[in-house]
Amino acid sequence: MPEKILVETSARHIHLTEQDVVDLFGEGHELTPRKYLSQPGQFACEEKVTVRGPKGEFKMSVLGPTRKSTQVEISATDARSIGVQAFVRESGDTAGTAGALLIGPAGEKEISEGVIVAKRHIHFTPADAAEYGVENGEIVSVKVETEGRSLIFGDVVCRVSESYALAMHIDTDESNAAGGPTSGEIIKQ
Amino acid sequence: MPEKILVETSARHIHLTEQDVVDLFGEGHELTPRKYLSQPGQFACEEKVTVRGPKGEFKMSVLGPTRKSTQVEISATDARSIGVQAFVRESGDTAGTAGALLIGPAGEKEISEGVIVAKRHIHFTPADAAEYGVENGEIVSVKVETEGRSLIFGDVVCRVSESYALAMHIDTDESNAAGGPTSGEIIKQ
Repeated sequence: MPEKILVETSARHIHLTEQDVVDLFGEGHELTPRKYLSQPGQFACEEKVTVRGPKGEFKMSVLGPTRKSTQVEISATDARSIGVQAFVRESGDTAGTAGALLIGPAGEKEISEGVIVAKRHIHFTPADAAEYGVENGEIVSVKVETEGRSLIFGDVVCRVSESYALAMHIDTDESNAAGGPTSGEIIKQ
Repeated sequence: MPEKILVETSARHIHLTEQDVVDLFGEGHELTPRKYLSQPGQFACEEKVTVRGPKGEFKMSVLGPTRKSTQVEISATDARSIGVQAFVRESGDTAGTAGALLIGPAGEKEISEGVIVAKRHIHFTPADAAEYGVENGEIVSVKVETEGRSLIFGDVVCRVSESYALAMHIDTDESNAAGGPTSGEIIKQ
């Protein structure tokens, strides 16, 4: 088996369409990269958006570049905290998920869906996928070893694309449940 | 192997000493049971205490009866939210853990330690322990199967006492990471 893979924890964040950047930050506004992420071309922005649900709100970082659909990614703990239902979904699969009110410095916008709890997943390049012997869409397990909170994540989706870099992404609930892991071992199911 | 065991999720809560009940709720105050829990004699109370850290606070249920030491049990997400360090500990093992300000209707009290993130564990009666072939203090794994978030918890402590009833306890981060499981299968390590 190849070596362990990088495990990264995604805190709550939002992806925006070009139109929503305009509506929330004003005409002509462009996202300002603050920090580049492990996935090529992806970055955390200086911009923040407040996402409000029936019971509360969070101010969260925008992740760029802009996308075809606006999507809010929160943990199930966050979902409960702001009073929206937690839908565990793959990125982009937002039909029928929770909505929220988005509040930016230049405007507000209600979205009727797009709030998801990201399904845990691993990004592979085709070369990495070949090395680990997995295919796009395959479900694997990942074993993480930490001080006092080791566990084996099941139901981990493999996603393969030339535009990716090898990394597993988990949310803050998953990271906390596993003692904040930074690497893991893929186990074929 | 015997059948699956009950898995219960513990939301944040606080256990109080008799003295702290007096200091927070007033002289002569007695805890009022609201709901009895799976562990014999343990109950959630009508009383609530605000636990404040450097960055925020939560109002949380008191669990009775009173204990020898006051102990706050929160998730690692909660710890970050109120700005205290998350120490994963067994109940009662609070030396060197985080402190907080406790606020009740009759007074406030600073505790210098006692805020823990509970280490996941299973309560067994001696008869149950014999049936499952485990001993007090033994570490096992527990497999839980849910829609899309199945996993295997490692580092689960077995605790055996005549005063217990068979149940595994996990916190809200762990429950969310596992899709809200209500039963699990013990796997010997």
